Amino acid sequence: MQKIKLGMVGGGKDAFIGSVHRMAARLDDRYDLVAGALSSSPIKASESAAEIGIDKKRSYTSYQEMAKKEGKLADGIDAVAIVTPNHLHADVAKEFLEAGIHVICDKPLTAKLSDAEELATLVKESGLVFAITYNYSGYPMVRQAKEMIAKGEIGTVRLVQSEYAQDWLATNIEQNGQKQATWRTDPNQAGAGGAIGDIGTHAYQLAEFITGLEASSLLADLDSFVSGRSLDDNANILLHYKNGAKGMLWVSQIASGKENGLNIRIFGDKGGLEWSQEDPNYLQHTTLGKPKQILTRAGSTSGELANAASRIPSGHPEGFIEGFANIYRETADLILAHNNKTEFTNLVPTVDDGLRGMRFIDKAVASNQAGSIWQSLDH
Amino acid sequence: MQKIKLGMVGGGKDAFIGSVHRMAARLDDRYDLVAGALSSSPIKASESAAEIGIDKKRSYTSYQEMAKKEGKLADGIDAVAIVTPNHLHADVAKEFLEAGIHVICDKPLTAKLSDAEELATLVKESGLVFAITYNYSGYPMVRQAKEMIAKGEIGTVRLVQSEYAQDWLATNIEQNGQKQATWRTDPNQAGAGGAIGDIGTHAYQLAEFITGLEASSLLADLDSFVSGRSLDDNANILLHYKNGAKGMLWVSQIASGKENGLNIRIFGDKGGLEWSQEDPNYLQHTTLGKPKQILTRAGSTSGELANAASRIPSGHPEGFIEGFANIYRETADLILAHNNKTEFTNLVPTVDDGLRGMRFIDKAVASNQAGSIWQSLDH
Amino acid sequence: MQKIKLGMVGGGKDAFIGSVHRMAARLDDRYDLVAGALSSSPIKASESAAEIGIDKKRSYTSYQEMAKKEGKLADGIDAVAIVTPNHLHADVAKEFLEAGIHVICDKPLTAKLSDAEELATLVKESGLVFAITYNYSGYPMVRQAKEMIAKGEIGTVRLVQSEYAQDWLATNIEQNGQKQATWRTDPNQAGAGGAIGDIGTHAYQLAEFITGLEASSLLADLDSFVSGRSLDDNANILLHYKNGAKGMLWVSQIASGKENGLNIRIFGDKGGLEWSQEDPNYLQHTTLGKPKQILTRAGSTSGELANAASRIPSGHPEGFIEGFANIYRETADLILAHNNKTEFTNLVPTVDDGLRGMRFIDKAVASNQAGSIWQSLDH
Amino acid sequence: MQKIKLGMVGGGKDAFIGSVHRMAARLDDRYDLVAGALSSSPIKASESAAEIGIDKKRSYTSYQEMAKKEGKLADGIDAVAIVTPNHLHADVAKEFLEAGIHVICDKPLTAKLSDAEELATLVKESGLVFAITYNYSGYPMVRQAKEMIAKGEIGTVRLVQSEYAQDWLATNIEQNGQKQATWRTDPNQAGAGGAIGDIGTHAYQLAEFITGLEASSLLADLDSFVSGRSLDDNANILLHYKNGAKGMLWVSQIASGKENGLNIRIFGDKGGLEWSQEDPNYLQHTTLGKPKQILTRAGSTSGELANAASRIPSGHPEGFIEGFANIYRETADLILAHNNKTEFTNLVPTVDDGLRGMRFIDKAVASNQAGSIWQSLDH
Repeated sequence: MQKIKLGMVGGGKDAFIGSVHRMAARLDDRYDLVAGALSSSPIKASESAAEIGIDKKRSYTSYQEMAKKEGKLADGIDAVAIVTPNHLHADVAKEFLEAGIHVICDKPLTAKLSDAEELATLVKESGLVFAITYNYSGYPMVRQAKEMIAKGEIGTVRLVQSEYAQDWLATNIEQNGQKQATWRTDPNQAGAGGAIGDIGTHAYQLAEFITGLEASSLLADLDSFVSGRSLDDNANILLHYKNGAKGMLWVSQIASGKENGLNIRIFGDKGGLEWSQEDPNYLQHTTLGKPKQILTRAGSTSGELANAASRIPSGHPEGFIEGFANIYRETADLILAHNNKTEFTNLVPTVDDGLRGMRFIDKAVASNQAGSIWQSLDH
Repeated sequence: MQKIKLGMVGGGKDAFIGSVHRMAARLDDRYDLVAGALSSSPIKASESAAEIGIDKKRSYTSYQEMAKKEGKLADGIDAVAIVTPNHLHADVAKEFLEAGIHVICDKPLTAKLSDAEELATLVKESGLVFAITYNYSGYPMVRQAKEMIAKGEIGTVRLVQSEYAQDWLATNIEQNGQKQATWRTDPNQAGAGGAIGDIGTHAYQLAEFITGLEASSLLADLDSFVSGRSLDDNANILLHYKNGAKGMLWVSQIASGKENGLNIRIFGDKGGLEWSQEDPNYLQHTTLGKPKQILTRAGSTSGELANAASRIPSGHPEGFIEGFANIYRETADLILAHNNKTEFTNLVPTVDDGLRGMRFIDKAVASNQAGSIWQSLDH
Repeated sequence: MQKIKLGMVGGGKDAFIGSVHRMAARLDDRYDLVAGALSSSPIKASESAAEIGIDKKRSYTSYQEMAKKEGKLADGIDAVAIVTPNHLHADVAKEFLEAGIHVICDKPLTAKLSDAEELATLVKESGLVFAITYNYSGYPMVRQAKEMIAKGEIGTVRLVQSEYAQDWLATNIEQNGQKQATWRTDPNQAGAGGAIGDIGTHAYQLAEFITGLEASSLLADLDSFVSGRSLDDNANILLHYKNGAKGMLWVSQIASGKENGLNIRIFGDKGGLEWSQEDPNYLQHTTLGKPKQILTRAGSTSGELANAASRIPSGHPEGFIEGFANIYRETADLILAHNNKTEFTNLVPTVDDGLRGMRFIDKAVASNQAGSIWQSLDH
Repeated sequence: MQKIKLGMVGGGKDAFIGSVHRMAARLDDRYDLVAGALSSSPIKASESAAEIGIDKKRSYTSYQEMAKKEGKLADGIDAVAIVTPNHLHADVAKEFLEAGIHVICDKPLTAKLSDAEELATLVKESGLVFAITYNYSGYPMVRQAKEMIAKGEIGTVRLVQSEYAQDWLATNIEQNGQKQATWRTDPNQAGAGGAIGDIGTHAYQLAEFITGLEASSLLADLDSFVSGRSLDDNANILLHYKNGAKGMLWVSQIASGKENGLNIRIFGDKGGLEWSQEDPNYLQHTTLGKPKQILTRAGSTSGELANAASRIPSGHPEGFIEGFANIYRETADLILAHNNKTEFTNLVPTVDDGLRGMRFIDKAVASNQAGSIWQSLDH
């Protein structure tokens, strides 16, 4: 199968998410990482490129230069992965779209809602593939839940209880130079959302992805519990969905004891589903009046979507990297379909999902500022 | 030890909670059940009394008569257990208090807030013992959590995430004559709260009991998902606590797959605690930067309160009845202390806890009617 | 319903199991504890009797005297509960059987196999009720497992994996005067089995109770890991069952981290079942090719036996005391049936179960002494 | 870093384990797969090579030819991965060792003990790297357990309880042409061990790897429950370790409800550890007299070995592929160290581990045939 030539912006040494993107791209052998603007520091950029195995000639210190040159090379990159802090996403993405290069962008889409709106328009005009790595929607049992709800197995959805709780910001580590914390708690780099932007958008997107529902309005109570922090580190949010379902969404980076606690529970009029990211190979399913069932990834009653997203048999746990790799694998399929002008059913989160995430952040902040008043999510 | 002579109002054949109260009273051999007005139906009352072993002469069909006669008997009852539907609690309690008889009352305190306020005043004037069976606060590991928080083991409490989810009202069983459902969904018998009254009050009280905090205000989004139901069957509630802590409280009787899912998770600036009623012998404790610990009932590091509330060694599970029995055992101690005019430290929920529960119901309904607006819980 | 007049031998102050028997007897109000020889120390006996509420006149210091007198009283006890150390069971039981009094005896049946054989004969000749408190067989979900296997829901049983692991004897606490440890590690009081007698007999009986199978032979590797201990504190045992099923049985009192870890897993040619005593309200059931199911006590698909053994709804956990109380409740039914000469289907463990337990101990010791050689369990 | 040029024998289309080896090799970008004899069928071999991206010229239909040619090429492969059925391992390995090529071989080492002994000698004479993919020893929390035991955190090991239970052979699927089942139940391809060879060797190796102990003798009770099957599908095994520790090992491929249930529990005189392959990111640790702790992969108290084996932060689950990839990554380090004549501390299972596994199979069969008699594992 033809491999996608991939570039990367950001993701130099010590960056966490860059190496995750690279492992995800590598797992299924669908990409060749051949170019990069891995750091704005020239030394760090070239050292990182050497370490990763990118040819010197295609290691850039400016993403603008990279976009322009790669766009013109005969064997230039097909796609770029953007793994910078949030405030750079929009500019970088525009540059590559304008050079006719497909984009894989980390979340949230941008730092400002207005940038997101502009970017969404640009993507549509370009006709190019734009994937946003809401990677949790790549987990096989998340797909299983989506398929079951679509088939009506829990009936009409009434309740969507979701939460994403961590504890790594329970103390003010950003004041001690922890790099990941520093930019995430800085409005200039992260945007208007703290925890709601960094992880809340994941939970919000996941709930919509699994249920197939759109949220219509929200109400938020945000806090910055850690002294000296200007962005939210905890958010208690209520949601209304367009079909009449109700939701609660708890987002926290100060919940002592939580590592990466993304959990979602969905209740319909016939049954319910529960999934936890930290134990991703299981899905609990209850039908009213019957015992709880524990579905396993690739297990005996696994559906089409979950099987397509699995690489190994049940009982052999898959994890975060495999789920992330599913987004990459499917994006490769999308790019090939685009290049070959064929149709392809897409599960990969789009720029519109990214835009919805930005609106979620914007409205949560607005609701909180108004004293926890309902805000429409439609516009 | 001197045994308490106990009477019971309500709790005839087929009543669920009456038999629980009797088992709880019996477990530690601190009570003799000697009188009852078990049903307003004379036949059912006498049959129930015979079954239970109450002497014919002390089986009444009217609680008024029972209160008057027992209040005058030389060996009349010391205390009465009230296990009727909610709307009768206030009148029954008053009658026995006026006869100088201590009261053990099921929750919620009354059907109307005004009745609750009046009853609270009456109790204080009477000087008698009044216990409300918020039984979940009797579980040993709930006590352990309370003791740990009081000792500062998780630091200052920031977040209180509680939920009480069931599924037995996911369909309209009240329209098919299911007795427990019928009165609980009828505003005339249950009061203004559906799920929030029946189980929400438990969760609300439990959070205050464990944390030692008082809620200052709430905001509620209530629903009646099941067609034809006038009281809430789902409630999504946000809370503010007086120390600045924030809370979410989810109450549902339509959450398909949930049997009796009362869970509470509390996060402070040093650590966190998690407890689930369905697995009550465990308490999860995390201190920031250390591995999660699973504390067990009566286990090696069990504290004073938990040990006092335990009857058997760790690994030998205790359950709902034992927790309920703790409320009864401690109420017996209170009554003896009262009768002997001695001091006794009390963990048993009081009429004030009952009154707070009624205010919780009242304000949740008011907040919801106003479109989810914050309501003070102070008055 | 007519109450059983109960006496107790052993179970004075500080005795663990005596108070469990009393709570179990009390829970369902089927017994009146009216006589006792609670201790061989006269002072302790009378103090214990006073505490428990037994009339002075019926508090004895000699069980022989108690048996003789109670056997002749018009309102003498119907049954006696024997809760002494093992080596006294046989003599005490004989005395009461000869006085025409039914017996409820703690396990293991006796300290010596020969005593057990003699006692079994005596019981049969007497025609009296003899219950041995293999209390774990009283748990509702154990009954559920038994019913499901009897109905063929997992097909022909092939594998029986059972274990009973504790850690309270991981150090030599018997040398520091811990009372429970002292007699259990003393061959003169405990008999030939250490862990295999104290807890191994429970696991062995439970496996036979649930599966309805009889073990035909065993092979044992016993150890006394703690220095200075003469009885086994760990046993690794293989089993053959008469239908061709194979078993492993692990018994340990030195398994650091185990509190009361009695677990049983049974696999047939159609499905499997798993149950853990420490979480007794659940039963895992898998049918080949289908997802694992979590059955809950009194849950939606709960069977006849489990429902009969339950007191409260699903989601409201029952525990050790309730399971123990089921043995007492059913023994009360048996005694009434005996007295009224009516038939009654019996789930209560009998003297034959006790005898099988003694043979299990005897053969495990013999197998180990012979270097782990198979021993028949038939005679 | 210099990449290892890798070849593969076996692992054509439809082969499960071949694709796992390839993902494991790819994850950390340490290998280039450049040659293969993927199938003995020429058509399948070339189709598989094309699919994988191996150059036609280096796609072979004979492993002998491949070994000879690659051994002489200037840029010939550095190492070969052998993923054929067991009976071919020895011959293939010899061929490549003789050509001076390092070997990564799937387990069990060979089909016959004598072949294994011969191969072990050959490996030592060659001085080449020989890795056997006992992949479960690559899991981070397995490494954590190894490190903790080595540091004495649970004291002297007394008990080793291990099990590996599956259910995919609970029915006779080998008679319906299921490819994986067919060769694994055929003595000519699998060797003398059925379940004990396929999965028992994993559990046996894992116990030795974690504890650092060697087993001295075993006693086995083997069965072939499924009609028509000649190799064992269930094994109940007792073990003695050289330090005096005792073990039980249960191996089954007919345990209805088990997917890939490899579990190990180790108890020392100070504490215990428990790990389950299906939830590999957790390790339970208990110290006597303290609460159970749940250690998490890369969590706050994670040790050196576990951290070295982790790619992403705690709470982001890693799985089977990542654990497998650790064996590949470390083998790459070993090969570079060998080629550069530098020292390197090795955690990768060796040919000696493979040989011990073959002796385990051989002695288990011998013990069973003799009626479950202890067999020495030393020679």
